[in-house]
Amino acid sequence: MKGIGIDIGGMSVKIGLVNDCGEIEERAVFTTPKNFEDLVKHLVYAINDMLRCGKTSVRNISGIGIGCPGVINSNGVVLSSCNLALENAPLKEELLKRFNTNIKISNDANVATLGEVKFGVAKGVKNAVMLTLGTGVGGGVVINGKLFEGGNSTGAELGHSTLVFGGEECACGRRGCMEKYVSATALIRDTKKAMMDDKNSSLWEAVDGNIDFVNGKTVFDEAKKGDVTANMVVDNFVSYLGDSIMSLNNIFRPEIFILGGGISAQGEYLTDKIIKYCEKYFFGYKGTAFPKIKTATLFNDAGIIGAYSLTI
Amino acid sequence: MKGIGIDIGGMSVKIGLVNDCGEIEERAVFTTPKNFEDLVKHLVYAINDMLRCGKTSVRNISGIGIGCPGVINSNGVVLSSCNLALENAPLKEELLKRFNTNIKISNDANVATLGEVKFGVAKGVKNAVMLTLGTGVGGGVVINGKLFEGGNSTGAELGHSTLVFGGEECACGRRGCMEKYVSATALIRDTKKAMMDDKNSSLWEAVDGNIDFVNGKTVFDEAKKGDVTANMVVDNFVSYLGDSIMSLNNIFRPEIFILGGGISAQGEYLTDKIIKYCEKYFFGYKGTAFPKIKTATLFNDAGIIGAYSLTI
Repeated sequence: MKGIGIDIGGMSVKIGLVNDCGEIEERAVFTTPKNFEDLVKHLVYAINDMLRCGKTSVRNISGIGIGCPGVINSNGVVLSSCNLALENAPLKEELLKRFNTNIKISNDANVATLGEVKFGVAKGVKNAVMLTLGTGVGGGVVINGKLFEGGNSTGAELGHSTLVFGGEECACGRRGCMEKYVSATALIRDTKKAMMDDKNSSLWEAVDGNIDFVNGKTVFDEAKKGDVTANMVVDNFVSYLGDSIMSLNNIFRPEIFILGGGISAQGEYLTDKIIKYCEKYFFGYKGTAFPKIKTATLFNDAGIIGAYSLTI
Repeated sequence: MKGIGIDIGGMSVKIGLVNDCGEIEERAVFTTPKNFEDLVKHLVYAINDMLRCGKTSVRNISGIGIGCPGVINSNGVVLSSCNLALENAPLKEELLKRFNTNIKISNDANVATLGEVKFGVAKGVKNAVMLTLGTGVGGGVVINGKLFEGGNSTGAELGHSTLVFGGEECACGRRGCMEKYVSATALIRDTKKAMMDDKNSSLWEAVDGNIDFVNGKTVFDEAKKGDVTANMVVDNFVSYLGDSIMSLNNIFRPEIFILGGGISAQGEYLTDKIIKYCEKYFFGYKGTAFPKIKTATLFNDAGIIGAYSLTI
């Protein structure tokens, strides 16, 4: 059965009509409104428009699934969301007033994970853990085929586990969170630091001498060319990420770890290094399977397809 | 309905007939046999004896529950257990040959957690996380009233999450595991270190000048008396434990954290300090409840009562 998937982001809201093969049949996008009232208004309009375009009705869809950044409780209330400036916003309740269907809302990282398990790289897998490596680090956990969101649906915040006790200050108020070491932001910071220590690194050529041009890809490009400093930064990153994965493995023992976000574009170049690192430190291996470690495959559609997955 | 709970330890095996109020009506104990064959033989004898003493039969009990150190898979096979020198031991299968009843086996830390949720400090709670602070650190997680054991029942190894990246070497082969900082063993190590740095600390008097007498209680006793060095060690311990709890809170958002093991004898003296520390760094608090942090109440009976809880 077809359904609607909505990916609310800080910049734009993407909406799609998705079929049960996980294919997006209709798409629309609009700029994220600044306040909750406008967000609801635009969503209602866009959903109705999409149903019309898809020649279907609210009675004939599996439901409306929404992925949204922030902390969302089990009643579909957005408790807080830095990116959207929402607080205690009863999103599900407001939409239920207009659409008499199955409405599900979850954190964007959770939704992306469910999408990968239903239609992406982890299709058919029962237990999976995903880390979305972007500005921050989003976490998603699927247990027995179902999204695990923690008590009151406010958990699975994997990026805010301490990795380096007393380390870098985190936006969450604590220190040394995983997010401060394995996000794209952290990788860029560490690349720049290493460049300042090595003026001869090819990293400088890669950015035409302007350190502000460093992005999450720069260090991988130069590491592949053999630059020693770039390789050092990549190796450090791999050990931070590998350690994080091994910690989560000891907790969840999933069949697969999925890496999403911009950095995951590195594919096997990255995952091969992580697997090699993790194999060295695999705890409790006797009789337990080593997890797969792969990059996500739904890319930019993960939000819409994952949100639809909430409804099936 | 009554049932049998068995607590297999490195030194002794405790067995009890437990009623549905969680009271142990009959008890027995025997020295842990050195090999698997003898373990099964002794267990069969002890179970039959217990049924006789309790004037009941295998048809009239809820089942046989067993808590055992190590990694135990969902088929009741002890995959590995450092304390028992067992490997791939099909414990459930062997007992099923003798007893036609509901037989459940789980890791000792998991079992203790379930016991606290069914009959102890967390009675009636749906989501709980327990840390058993002893020689190592055992972890247990209850989600929606049920034990969460991870994929193939081999997860929930909370003590082996990285807390200090690149830190102290752990028996698991990795570095900086939580276990190396919040176990009784770690606290004793840190107490001794601090004593070597401060020959005037009252810690020295407490052990009659012999550092080998330091145990997990020493530092708390002297901190309460006002010794500056002892208080510093306790404060460090609280920050390690508080950070660990906050990381797990971001993942599970349980209603309660339960602290077990010898150190938990400190009760509110310890938990008050931890709560104060955690309140400073509580992530995503908006609209989410701050978890309770309490010490376990089943003490030495946690193993038997928790094992019985597996059968109900």
